[in-house]
Amino acid sequence: MQEARRLDGKVAAAAFLAEVRGGVAAFRERTGRSPGLGALLVGEDPASAVYVRSKARQCEQVGIHSAVVTLGHHATTAEVGAAVLALNADAAIDGILVQLPLPPQVEKRAVLESVLPEKDVDGFHPLNAGRLVAGDRRALWPCTPHGIIRLLDREGIEIAGSRAVVLGRSDIVGKPLALLLLHRHATVTVCHSRTRNLSTVAREADILISAMGKPWLVDATFVRPGAAVVDVGMNRATAADFPGGAPLPESPWAVELAAKGYTLLGDVNPLAVAPVAGALTPVPGGVGPLTIAMLLHNTLIAARRRERLDAGEQA
Amino acid sequence: MQEARRLDGKVAAAAFLAEVRGGVAAFRERTGRSPGLGALLVGEDPASAVYVRSKARQCEQVGIHSAVVTLGHHATTAEVGAAVLALNADAAIDGILVQLPLPPQVEKRAVLESVLPEKDVDGFHPLNAGRLVAGDRRALWPCTPHGIIRLLDREGIEIAGSRAVVLGRSDIVGKPLALLLLHRHATVTVCHSRTRNLSTVAREADILISAMGKPWLVDATFVRPGAAVVDVGMNRATAADFPGGAPLPESPWAVELAAKGYTLLGDVNPLAVAPVAGALTPVPGGVGPLTIAMLLHNTLIAARRRERLDAGEQA
Repeated sequence: MQEARRLDGKVAAAAFLAEVRGGVAAFRERTGRSPGLGALLVGEDPASAVYVRSKARQCEQVGIHSAVVTLGHHATTAEVGAAVLALNADAAIDGILVQLPLPPQVEKRAVLESVLPEKDVDGFHPLNAGRLVAGDRRALWPCTPHGIIRLLDREGIEIAGSRAVVLGRSDIVGKPLALLLLHRHATVTVCHSRTRNLSTVAREADILISAMGKPWLVDATFVRPGAAVVDVGMNRATAADFPGGAPLPESPWAVELAAKGYTLLGDVNPLAVAPVAGALTPVPGGVGPLTIAMLLHNTLIAARRRERLDAGEQA
Repeated sequence: MQEARRLDGKVAAAAFLAEVRGGVAAFRERTGRSPGLGALLVGEDPASAVYVRSKARQCEQVGIHSAVVTLGHHATTAEVGAAVLALNADAAIDGILVQLPLPPQVEKRAVLESVLPEKDVDGFHPLNAGRLVAGDRRALWPCTPHGIIRLLDREGIEIAGSRAVVLGRSDIVGKPLALLLLHRHATVTVCHSRTRNLSTVAREADILISAMGKPWLVDATFVRPGAAVVDVGMNRATAADFPGGAPLPESPWAVELAAKGYTLLGDVNPLAVAPVAGALTPVPGGVGPLTIAMLLHNTLIAARRRERLDAGEQA
């Protein structure tokens, strides 16, 4: 049986990061400084700390200066806002990353709106979201949708004229991805937990993207033969998530974290889908590495724009 | 043969305007002043002048103070921007309307971004667009999509769980409407000029909205029996637009403007669609009156928010 082509996010991310590294080197040559990413970490969530460290490490690998500001888990909205304002004012910082989730007492919207839109490399500020809606080139795009578009392009998967179905309607993935696909001339359908006959709608897709956060939700009944399937899910699943039986531990598509009692699974059941789909991203090693690559790409873009603004002011 | 129920926009708009009138009276009683709408008209486009006059007249009818600022067709971006800033600073003005289109030498994006977001009653500022994406209640919604949602609700057409297909992807109608329908739990597909098999995709819809700007594009092949069809089109059509023959002048659904040599037609061919659809908006008298009603509604909302801010500052 023909298996789906594996869309390797690690390989694609390495290629994109090589481009970023080249751009960073040229930037440093022109300006005498490195682009800078400032990360704000509030509280002691271990997963968040891992993400922030990993991003800082990848910054170094491409020559981006990184700074991490940490605040305790009792920090107020005002304290978090003050930390953002300091990064806004810091001339060495081109991009600001507020690691989510924030503790419950912190007003997330107020914090995200306090980031200078031109330093908002996560693309979470509503001004960037609104510019994305309008197809305004000044928008900084959210990293996961951006990475998915770049991956499809790199793999030669035609977006224009296709039918794309997005499962999930989050502010961070589903909605911005739908808009980006629409601007690239796909006919786009957005589904969610309230969609009826979900698998039937999904089967209309030439390009199916799942960002529902439900382990192995997408099986063969969701997939038109030959469709490209992109799996955004990163779900910590246990046997209890599968009434029909535990996930198959021998699958090379699942990462077992046995000591912690769970398995890391995407939204897509690759054992069922790989024989039907034309192409499929693995989890892990699919969309995840692309997200970080686009964060660094956005930081370089933001640095170049500030450079041009500075040049304009001096001229 | 059963004909589609006629979704009368004039009747619905009159009901919404009665609500606005009541809200305006209560506002005036509390504050001693009327909500104010400032319209900016640049150039001598006759249609634009008609729209602005019509909006000003409707303001008066519900008790909203209106002011029209006019600039000549040679106005620069800076001059238009200065006029916007004056309206931003005017305490008697709660809502600002920049009548489109602007003359070609005026940078539209710069002008629209110069409107204070809290006075942006057209919902065209990217900050409002971004807040709409996020479902943030502070967003002022664009008037046509807002009016369509209100009409569907008033007519008892269930949005949640439906399949909605939007034909057209403009910043003003298609994209914001898709987002509003999505937030109301419809499964939403957006089509456009590059969509393949357009009529097949349209036929998936329980709710079909056409905002393509193509006279009588939508025929019976686009419509699932019983679907609700909303026609946003307002097209000046001549016989030349219909290779298969001139539009039918005897149709009660078409408005002939014989002296001017054209006929006003929607995107939907009502003669073909009315026997198939469950419900249908006429053109004119469908979406158009709702758009103006929502503009006045937004002006009242903006005035109430400024009132609360003033109260907060004095407290």
